[in-house]
Amino acid sequence: MYRHLDDSNIKSKGCVSVNVLVLGGSGFIGSNLCETLVQLGHHVKIMDRSMKKTDFNFTQIEFIEADFTQIEDFKPILQGIDIIYHLISTTVPATSNVNKIYDISSNVCSTIQLLDACVQTGVKKIIFLSSGGTIYGQTEVNLIPEEHPTNPICSYGIQKLTIEKYLYYYNHEYGLDYHIIRLANPYGKGQIGKNGQGVIPIFIRKIMNNEEIQIWGDGSTTRDYIYIDDATQALCMLLEYKGDCKLYNLGSGQGVSLLDIVNCISEVVNIQAKIRFMEARSIDVKSNVLDISKITKELHWEPRKKLKDGIYQMYLDIK
Amino acid sequence: MYRHLDDSNIKSKGCVSVNVLVLGGSGFIGSNLCETLVQLGHHVKIMDRSMKKTDFNFTQIEFIEADFTQIEDFKPILQGIDIIYHLISTTVPATSNVNKIYDISSNVCSTIQLLDACVQTGVKKIIFLSSGGTIYGQTEVNLIPEEHPTNPICSYGIQKLTIEKYLYYYNHEYGLDYHIIRLANPYGKGQIGKNGQGVIPIFIRKIMNNEEIQIWGDGSTTRDYIYIDDATQALCMLLEYKGDCKLYNLGSGQGVSLLDIVNCISEVVNIQAKIRFMEARSIDVKSNVLDISKITKELHWEPRKKLKDGIYQMYLDIK
Repeated sequence: MYRHLDDSNIKSKGCVSVNVLVLGGSGFIGSNLCETLVQLGHHVKIMDRSMKKTDFNFTQIEFIEADFTQIEDFKPILQGIDIIYHLISTTVPATSNVNKIYDISSNVCSTIQLLDACVQTGVKKIIFLSSGGTIYGQTEVNLIPEEHPTNPICSYGIQKLTIEKYLYYYNHEYGLDYHIIRLANPYGKGQIGKNGQGVIPIFIRKIMNNEEIQIWGDGSTTRDYIYIDDATQALCMLLEYKGDCKLYNLGSGQGVSLLDIVNCISEVVNIQAKIRFMEARSIDVKSNVLDISKITKELHWEPRKKLKDGIYQMYLDIK
Repeated sequence: MYRHLDDSNIKSKGCVSVNVLVLGGSGFIGSNLCETLVQLGHHVKIMDRSMKKTDFNFTQIEFIEADFTQIEDFKPILQGIDIIYHLISTTVPATSNVNKIYDISSNVCSTIQLLDACVQTGVKKIIFLSSGGTIYGQTEVNLIPEEHPTNPICSYGIQKLTIEKYLYYYNHEYGLDYHIIRLANPYGKGQIGKNGQGVIPIFIRKIMNNEEIQIWGDGSTTRDYIYIDDATQALCMLLEYKGDCKLYNLGSGQGVSLLDIVNCISEVVNIQAKIRFMEARSIDVKSNVLDISKITKELHWEPRKKLKDGIYQMYLDIK
């Protein structure tokens, strides 16, 4: 059995305050992460294009408004930073294929500039948010382990994989420490469901408003959804982690179909959903559920929120 | 036992003439490949930065002088082309780390433009020259199979891997057929040993001239050397190959140390080598020998030239 490290447990360990930079800190994942980092007593700096999305108390958080792809020199931003969370992607899976050259240059090339500056300024570790949903491509297994072949079927997955490879290289060549988190589909507080990402808030709103839901395919495509608080807790635990494992899947480890989601929401909201089935998209893999045994073992972490409870919580937030 | 398909064998099969574009066709590998392709009766077009390097009969070969990284629209170049050999890299392993952003943008982004044009013009297949020497990174196995994890320790290996992933994606998304050849270290006729690549011609010249040889490390680093005629024959056989295997190692499957090479040359040239040992470079893996069982089985090909015979042939060419 895995021991679960809850907040009180983290605090009781007397963890040292760390100077953290969160790239993309005002997005859905970033804002939840920063909130938890501040609660844990860390010094948090955010770099993001816009601070409008957040309702942070900025006496506790330093904010740098900047476009990741336009920064010529990261060094001034990295002064005094111990650890970076790199959560920025300029694209999402569907948009990444529209302009693959932009996808590569804005994500991979900008990250190389960042890594060079990390080496020059003595940043200790970079924690990179990769993509559990796209990096493996089509799979035949029920649970995908980290060692599974990586053959993405969208550009987004390729740029994430390429950045993973540069992290490995920078560690080998310059000793820059890193962790890679291949995240499943997070959902929860602050997720607005833009760019077609975040089916749960999108579906909740549509069902609440009696609007038609569009589903690509027959609704049987299966994904791994993780509640944001579970995800941010694991991300925070990496700050203290001293082991050798660099690369982790992070998800619930449970497969849920789109129809399961719709039915669960219908039950919570108590309104029957109207579904329109659309032709399946070639970028969507049939099934994608992560094997999370490595992270549960190494970090003594496990996901706590059950899907129905998470959906109910989101429903309350939205209502 | 594997049947070896020699030239007479290829001709006796009555292979259909194909319109081939060789990107990088006037380099060491490209010029040998083009010569064989012409001998086999194919229509060959070369695109390279310079035609000066070659002594082709240009009544048989069409030549386009152009810089791969500066082409805005590949479509006019691809008109009427059935199959492309993509042999261009703007960097070599050692230089790739100096400017990683250039490495990615000039190789990966230019190749994406090429692939888009292939889809638009109906090119049937692209055969991409990847890197058996850098793509796997550090390994613990004596013979590296294609399924081995890929963790390059130089940017060159990462850009090659990224292009491999885009080839997989374009095949999945647009049906563009491809083969990837992860080539070991080719040597032979026309290799001039520039950019620190090609230890065999470099060592032969130095030993012939009684000059000092510089060896990074203690000389025990082991590599897989393949004679250029063996390599080009396998590359040509892919034109006709109809099987499902997309990705191949191509080498001799034999490990040879730098000291083995020096001793072999000394014996052939009959001059004792003067060696200066330098500090090992971090980009050099200790051992890299390819498992070639897949290509020997699928293409009924096997390497014929023994190292000593190949070195003797090069010595005669240089002398």
